[in-house]
Amino acid sequence: MNAPTAPNAGSGGAQKRDTRPLADCLLRPQSVAIVGASANLKKNNGRPQRYLAKHGYPGQVYLINPAYETLFDRPCFPRLTAVGRPIDHAYVMVPGQAMEAVIEDCIEAGVRCASVFTGGYAESGPEGAALQRRLAAKARDGGLRLLGPNSLGVVNTRLPMTLSANAVLERESLPAGRFGLVSQSGSLIGALVSRGQARGIGFSTLVSVGNESDLSVGEVAAMLVADPETDVITLFLETLRDRSALEAMAAQAHAAGKPVMAYVLGRSELGRSLAQSHTGALAGQATAMDAFLRDMGILRVSLFESLIETPPLLAGRQLPEGRRVAVVTTTGGGGALVADHLGERGLSVVRPPAELQQALAGHGLDIGDSRIVDLTMAGTREETVDACLGTLVDSPEVDAVVMVVGSSSEFYPELAVKPLAKWARAAKPVVSFLFPNAERSLALLAEAGIAAFRTPEACADALDAYLRWTPPRPRPVAPLPPAARRALDHPSGADTLDEQEALALFSALGIPTVSCRVMDQDGPVPEDIPYPVVVKILSPDIAHKSDLGGVAVGVPDAAALREAARRIHQAAAAAQPEARLNGILVQPMVRGLAEVIVGFHVDPLVGPVVMVGVGGVLAEVYQDVAVRLAPVDREEALSMLREVKGLAPLFGARGHPRGDVDALARSVAALSGLAADDGAAVLEAEINPMIVMREGQETEGRGAVAVDGWVRLARGDKSDG
Amino acid sequence: MNAPTAPNAGSGGAQKRDTRPLADCLLRPQSVAIVGASANLKKNNGRPQRYLAKHGYPGQVYLINPAYETLFDRPCFPRLTAVGRPIDHAYVMVPGQAMEAVIEDCIEAGVRCASVFTGGYAESGPEGAALQRRLAAKARDGGLRLLGPNSLGVVNTRLPMTLSANAVLERESLPAGRFGLVSQSGSLIGALVSRGQARGIGFSTLVSVGNESDLSVGEVAAMLVADPETDVITLFLETLRDRSALEAMAAQAHAAGKPVMAYVLGRSELGRSLAQSHTGALAGQATAMDAFLRDMGILRVSLFESLIETPPLLAGRQLPEGRRVAVVTTTGGGGALVADHLGERGLSVVRPPAELQQALAGHGLDIGDSRIVDLTMAGTREETVDACLGTLVDSPEVDAVVMVVGSSSEFYPELAVKPLAKWARAAKPVVSFLFPNAERSLALLAEAGIAAFRTPEACADALDAYLRWTPPRPRPVAPLPPAARRALDHPSGADTLDEQEALALFSALGIPTVSCRVMDQDGPVPEDIPYPVVVKILSPDIAHKSDLGGVAVGVPDAAALREAARRIHQAAAAAQPEARLNGILVQPMVRGLAEVIVGFHVDPLVGPVVMVGVGGVLAEVYQDVAVRLAPVDREEALSMLREVKGLAPLFGARGHPRGDVDALARSVAALSGLAADDGAAVLEAEINPMIVMREGQETEGRGAVAVDGWVRLARGDKSDG
Repeated sequence: MNAPTAPNAGSGGAQKRDTRPLADCLLRPQSVAIVGASANLKKNNGRPQRYLAKHGYPGQVYLINPAYETLFDRPCFPRLTAVGRPIDHAYVMVPGQAMEAVIEDCIEAGVRCASVFTGGYAESGPEGAALQRRLAAKARDGGLRLLGPNSLGVVNTRLPMTLSANAVLERESLPAGRFGLVSQSGSLIGALVSRGQARGIGFSTLVSVGNESDLSVGEVAAMLVADPETDVITLFLETLRDRSALEAMAAQAHAAGKPVMAYVLGRSELGRSLAQSHTGALAGQATAMDAFLRDMGILRVSLFESLIETPPLLAGRQLPEGRRVAVVTTTGGGGALVADHLGERGLSVVRPPAELQQALAGHGLDIGDSRIVDLTMAGTREETVDACLGTLVDSPEVDAVVMVVGSSSEFYPELAVKPLAKWARAAKPVVSFLFPNAERSLALLAEAGIAAFRTPEACADALDAYLRWTPPRPRPVAPLPPAARRALDHPSGADTLDEQEALALFSALGIPTVSCRVMDQDGPVPEDIPYPVVVKILSPDIAHKSDLGGVAVGVPDAAALREAARRIHQAAAAAQPEARLNGILVQPMVRGLAEVIVGFHVDPLVGPVVMVGVGGVLAEVYQDVAVRLAPVDREEALSMLREVKGLAPLFGARGHPRGDVDALARSVAALSGLAADDGAAVLEAEINPMIVMREGQETEGRGAVAVDGWVRLARGDKSDG
Repeated sequence: MNAPTAPNAGSGGAQKRDTRPLADCLLRPQSVAIVGASANLKKNNGRPQRYLAKHGYPGQVYLINPAYETLFDRPCFPRLTAVGRPIDHAYVMVPGQAMEAVIEDCIEAGVRCASVFTGGYAESGPEGAALQRRLAAKARDGGLRLLGPNSLGVVNTRLPMTLSANAVLERESLPAGRFGLVSQSGSLIGALVSRGQARGIGFSTLVSVGNESDLSVGEVAAMLVADPETDVITLFLETLRDRSALEAMAAQAHAAGKPVMAYVLGRSELGRSLAQSHTGALAGQATAMDAFLRDMGILRVSLFESLIETPPLLAGRQLPEGRRVAVVTTTGGGGALVADHLGERGLSVVRPPAELQQALAGHGLDIGDSRIVDLTMAGTREETVDACLGTLVDSPEVDAVVMVVGSSSEFYPELAVKPLAKWARAAKPVVSFLFPNAERSLALLAEAGIAAFRTPEACADALDAYLRWTPPRPRPVAPLPPAARRALDHPSGADTLDEQEALALFSALGIPTVSCRVMDQDGPVPEDIPYPVVVKILSPDIAHKSDLGGVAVGVPDAAALREAARRIHQAAAAAQPEARLNGILVQPMVRGLAEVIVGFHVDPLVGPVVMVGVGGVLAEVYQDVAVRLAPVDREEALSMLREVKGLAPLFGARGHPRGDVDALARSVAALSGLAADDGAAVLEAEINPMIVMREGQETEGRGAVAVDGWVRLARGDKSDG
């Protein structure tokens, strides 16, 4: 850290705008300013300049605080505009009431970007959110890019540049590495630097995005995708504030061959509510986030320690070909632990290929036919490990290899760990779990670039994430069919459709629907309908018709129909007097193999999604659904159906008759087409139930039929057409 | 280790039997012999004497090997009988073919117990199992107790005594502690000693039970319950070989106030199959093991690292009062991580009690009303931590406290970690998760006796296990009702009952059943039955009647019934010509709110269990069942019903009409009564479905009715009545 030789203190004039690329200014600044620098080194405001010096930042550092003329024998400027030299990046730690003036100064001084440490904005409630909007608008108008507010700053270990108040920087040295981290939690950065260092795993650049009033996770991560010093991008997410930036980044990362992985806070309702209170944003349904990340080609890990342990597995990796794992161990117990967790996640542990048995027999080892390759103590030596791993890496039956090392990893790394370390650049991942505490071996493997896991759980988690990895999914583009558009042009301007209108919309989308007749509660009975029939109240305002006596099933004849219509109308009018009653709906009974629920909605975070699950009471209980960003094509819809456990019988599981899953998939794809125009027309649509027929027994080519549903329109939100 | 001063080599005579208590000889021997001691210190057989010397065993060590007269300047005896002094415990490492002679020597020399390291027994297949049975029989006949075979031995850190070939003993020092470990995996002992030492967590005694041909997990664990130097007993299980010994131990542990916790390998089908190949035993259905441990009052943890991190939480603890956790944090992100995992496990994170807000306001801290207490950096100091933890420990709304410490735990333990460390002996658990890597603080907390977790997952796992802890459940004792005994006395000697006989058995147990009439396929139609009816083929040999056309529902009148009877009989005879057809069963249609499956079976590991779950196709898919050791009383049956997610609607969840869960619980309890005589009469019984009526709308006091079922008898197994 060099003191500026001739500070232009007090010049006060506007400087020429800094024109270096934004990514350079944000992540690799040549000059930084600390606005609100303090004389008290123990306070937050005293930390950044100390850390910059401690870790050897080679650029210019300007301290800004009107209360001092010098700070620690260095000049201190009253304002940014007084510096008189280009400033790439300002770190702003002033109290909220001084913020606007500082932002104006940043603009006037031509500062390229500012990281705002100060809190009390969107994370603290609606008032703070309004303040934050004003702050962001002011910066945008002045051409200043903002990180935060509520950001713990940026750490670049390779420059090095530590523009942060994070106490993790108290350490004497900062491990460098080739993994990038973008985090919505500031303190997480400290935790990962600290834990990574203990494991010999370092990061290239770590960014705390705070409240993302301007620069979002996606935009910052894209800078790391473009960074030649970063191989893997890791995200810690509590919410999603700019999905299109993240989507663009994911596409760039895929093109660049750089894996992106994420950990999402909010596994539980409770976690999601905390993410909300913690950052001022809603993490949304976990399943929608899952769908989003999957469709972006972003890997998702589920354990905290996987955040540190997984990147070495991913560095330089291409997409996996299958999900088959070979487990090699020097200790039965440790191998079984890993295999147990792999099995729990549905990964297939392959039996040793025949050529492996031969290769090891050549070394005097009989591995039998157990699902895991137990080298035993006799095989814990270099030649055997070499032969074993070489054979497995070459085998077309294997997509990844785990090697579990027992007590030798603590005292004799040369026996199994060193031979293992040679396989870091193998064509498929070779990773390890060390059974005892074996610091030396962990360091040795980290140095070699082999992913080493401290727990069997994280080992299985990381492999599972890797082996589920798919490329970003291109979503089909198709305009809404004209008939569907007409079905949505509801003259009344109501924001929900009644069941008949909803079925008409589904039909216009190309989804087979049950035939419907409408009658008055005391009007003539429709003539052309085959008994027995189902009779329902028709109203856009009644969501749960059965609960208030608004449905009759198995009505056998015209007389009973007349009676049912009267009774149902009466019941509905009594239960919900304010509801619009549009008549009585009459439908033939439809029977099939299964009832399925198919839904579409515009998720507040990830946008339009399509969902499919088992219908009925238990669907709510088990939350057994598959979700994707909408739209999907028929093939993707089929992959969704295969994910839903409760639909396994439709695929013929356990001897059940097979359902027409292809027809069902076509309907799922058709409903997902409501995402045209980014879901501008429909907020929510649900077919519940859709009845799936036995394969080959469809009626009139209709293997799946929508018999009920409802739709909520986006009228209020269609402000610009 | 002292060399015997005057070896009685070559005396060859029988010695007086060692009469010290078995637990002393096994775990705290005054004299040990190593049979098969080797000159090659790098080989397994060279290790035990080296380890005993290295770690300072104060007792007598006798080396036995006919190949040497001396080993390392110490006398070496050709046989055990040549020692001529009492030997508490022999460690046997000879090849299999020499084993029988050594066992005979042990007996002749009056050795109290022998640990057999040698493998190739039950874990290697049926031949090995036969060898093992012979070995065990020989030892039993001679009054010698056996640990193993395939045992890695015994380590007592407090004596110290390291009678083991486990390479973990290569370490320079062996941490002592107050936690005992009994493991079916030998290498696990090494992993835990190694990992525990790195964390400042030590064990009192660790025992590798191997194949348990004689001494079982339960019997050995009972010795640790009685050991004044052991506070918590930890079990690592791959199977269950002696449930009554484990049950007796659990009762003793409960009486002694010593918690017992277990980790069970076999979360997945794959893991269970590996446990089998690894130890030669079947781990059985995970749910049955769960039920067993729960009913024993044994806590179960689900993560590997929990094995080390949980015991400090349990030491000296009583049963929890509720499941309410308070989360305190110095860093929002770390606190949210823990809370998220707690939420996922269904634990209730309590809002800060009002008195806490007041107490902290007194320290100038406004914690708001978030679900987690965020002290922030401002509150990371001794007085605040004291006030906060004191208030929470005293609060009647809190059952356990987690404190999450951020970066201060790495650099400034005095701020939050030291004040936290004072609460190890609080009346309720105060545990911690440290966000960064903070070795010094982990050691400080371990020293103080505070459970400290390295991951949020293990923290939630351990708290969950503790907060689910219940005392051993006394199972009601009742003989089988005489009517049920009669129903089981089937004249034909068949080993399955047909549906009518099964329903008769259920009825005899006190379970409401649907009324049944039996007719011939062409015989007269029963007169006194209300139409519509259900018609089924009656056969003890046909399990899936519907699949082969053996069922008709909604049969409206006598003519249709006659026709259905003929058709069904024809279909059954065609589909399964060898099946015994006992006629046609006619039952009234029964309608209710839900179909439930209630089952009883004798699990090969844990014995008789009772099960309840949702009926129908999806039951198989979701495996959403509750299981207990049988029998259960009505109250326990109700607690089972509450565990089944899919039965929540019957309890009125989400506005569903409430079912007669009390009647259902009575039937579950009644079926569980088949466990009388330890399930000697019935191997399996299943009511499927049991129809549950709406509460208050039961017919003739029958709120749940069995309408179908089957029973498999234990005829073949009733060898002694």
